[in-house]
Amino acid sequence: MTAYVQDAIVLLGDSITQFAASPDGLATKLTDAYSRKMDVINRGLSGYNTDWITPVFEQCFPTQHEAQHAAKTRLLVIWLGANDAALPHSVQHVPLARYEANLAALVRAVRDPESPRYAPDTRVVLLTPPPVQPVRWAKALAGFMGSTEVQAPDRSLEESRRYAEGVKAVAGREGVAVVDVWGKIWEAAGGDEEKVGEFLLDGLHLNGEGYKVAYDALIATIEEKYPEYHYDRLRMVFPEWSVIAENVESYRELTKKRSAFGN
Amino acid sequence: MTAYVQDAIVLLGDSITQFAASPDGLATKLTDAYSRKMDVINRGLSGYNTDWITPVFEQCFPTQHEAQHAAKTRLLVIWLGANDAALPHSVQHVPLARYEANLAALVRAVRDPESPRYAPDTRVVLLTPPPVQPVRWAKALAGFMGSTEVQAPDRSLEESRRYAEGVKAVAGREGVAVVDVWGKIWEAAGGDEEKVGEFLLDGLHLNGEGYKVAYDALIATIEEKYPEYHYDRLRMVFPEWSVIAENVESYRELTKKRSAFGN
Repeated sequence: MTAYVQDAIVLLGDSITQFAASPDGLATKLTDAYSRKMDVINRGLSGYNTDWITPVFEQCFPTQHEAQHAAKTRLLVIWLGANDAALPHSVQHVPLARYEANLAALVRAVRDPESPRYAPDTRVVLLTPPPVQPVRWAKALAGFMGSTEVQAPDRSLEESRRYAEGVKAVAGREGVAVVDVWGKIWEAAGGDEEKVGEFLLDGLHLNGEGYKVAYDALIATIEEKYPEYHYDRLRMVFPEWSVIAENVESYRELTKKRSAFGN
Repeated sequence: MTAYVQDAIVLLGDSITQFAASPDGLATKLTDAYSRKMDVINRGLSGYNTDWITPVFEQCFPTQHEAQHAAKTRLLVIWLGANDAALPHSVQHVPLARYEANLAALVRAVRDPESPRYAPDTRVVLLTPPPVQPVRWAKALAGFMGSTEVQAPDRSLEESRRYAEGVKAVAGREGVAVVDVWGKIWEAAGGDEEKVGEFLLDGLHLNGEGYKVAYDALIATIEEKYPEYHYDRLRMVFPEWSVIAENVESYRELTKKRSAFGN
C-alpha cells in the first residue's frame, strides 16, 4: 500500500512517453529533477492514439469523489499524436478533427468545473508530436517484424507537422500551455529533414538528443506558464537531514510530511 | 489526482536510494523494467538513518484501514545503513543493535498479522549498505563544504561490513530476502579495497557500475525468492496496442485495466 505523501506529475502519452523511462528519457530527467518533491507517474502506452487513450485516462484520473485519498496530480503532461498522425490506411490513424476534439476533451475533463474529474490544482501541458523520417521508420518496422520486405511508409513528415499544428490550436483555444516539440526539433535540425534524424532513434521515436530538446522545452514552459510548479520553487516533502541533525531529539516532529508547495 | 491503476514497488532508503533516480541508477533501471506493470516509488532520503526513516515509513505505508484506495505495494525494498554505520562521533550514527532492531521493526510492520500496516501481498527485500572508502569520502565531503581542510573520516570499511552483516542477520531471523550489495561489490572488486573505488562515486555513494551490481543482484534475488514478482512473469495493466488493433470497435472494453498478476 502506498500512501499519498507527494503530489504527482502524470505523463499521458504513447510510446514516446513510455520509452521516456529510458536512461536518457524525458521521464527519467523529470523524476530526478522533482526528486522528493513530486512523483512522476508514467502512463505512456506504446501504439495508443487519442481514441484508445481516452478510457485509459478515465481510469488513471479519478473523479472528484474518488480523488479524496489519491495523490493530487499537479501537472498533467499530454503527449499524443505520433500514432493519430499515421496515414489513413493505418488502424492507428485518427482524423485530424477528431484528434483535436479528443485532445480538447481530455483538457476539459480536468479544467471544466462541470466535469466529474474537475481538478483546479492540475495544470495541463500539451506536447506536439515530433517530426518523423518515414522511410527510416518503415525500414525499422520491417526489422522489428523480422521481415526483409519494407512496406510503404505509414507516416509522413507533412502529417506530423499538421497534427503538431493541431495541438497548438487546441492549446490556444483551451488556454493551456503547449510545448512545440515538433518545432523545437525542426529548429534544432536547422529545418533539414536529414538532420532531424539526429534527434530520432528509428525515424519515429526520440533518442537522447531528442528527449533533451523536449525536456528543456518542457521545463522552460513550466517556468514561463506555471512558475510556481517549477522544481526550484518547491520544497522537499520531508526535510533535509541537516535540519534533523540540528535537533535530533525532535526527529519525529521534524519528519512530518509537508506540502511541497509551502503554506 | 492519480487513481490506483498499477501496483507499486517502494524503495525506502537513504541517499543511495535517492540518487538511484540518476540515469544509470537502480531506480531508473527498475522503473524501465517494470514499465506498464508496476510503478516505482522512490522514498530515498539523503542523510537519513533507520531512526529518522521510521516515522517517514509510517507516513508512506498506510495502515490497513487507510489502504483501501491506495496502490498496493508489492515489493518493499529497504536499503539503509550507510548513515547508521557512520562512526559514533557522527550525529547520523545508530548503534548496530538498535539499527538491527529498527530494520526488524520495519519488516514486522508489514509482515506481522497483528500490525496495523500488515500487508500480506507485500514482499520485503533488504539490501546491505555498500563498502566505503573513508578517506576518499572525507575529501569529497570537504569539497562539498567548500573547505580545503579534510576532517577525520566519519565512516570505516569495517563498520560498513559489520552493518552489512547485521542486515543479513535480520533477514535471516525475519525470513525475508536479502541482497548482499556489500558482498557483491567486494567480490566484484576482487576483495581489493582500492578496486572497490571502481564502484563508488565519491567513496560513499554508488556510481553506475555500483548500481549495476546492486540492480543485477536485486533482480536475481526477486527471481529466486519471489519469482511471481519478476517483471517477466507480469502482464501489462493495459493491453498491447496490437490487441486493440485486432478489434478496434471494442477498444473501450479492451482497455479496462487488469491486474498485472493475472487472475
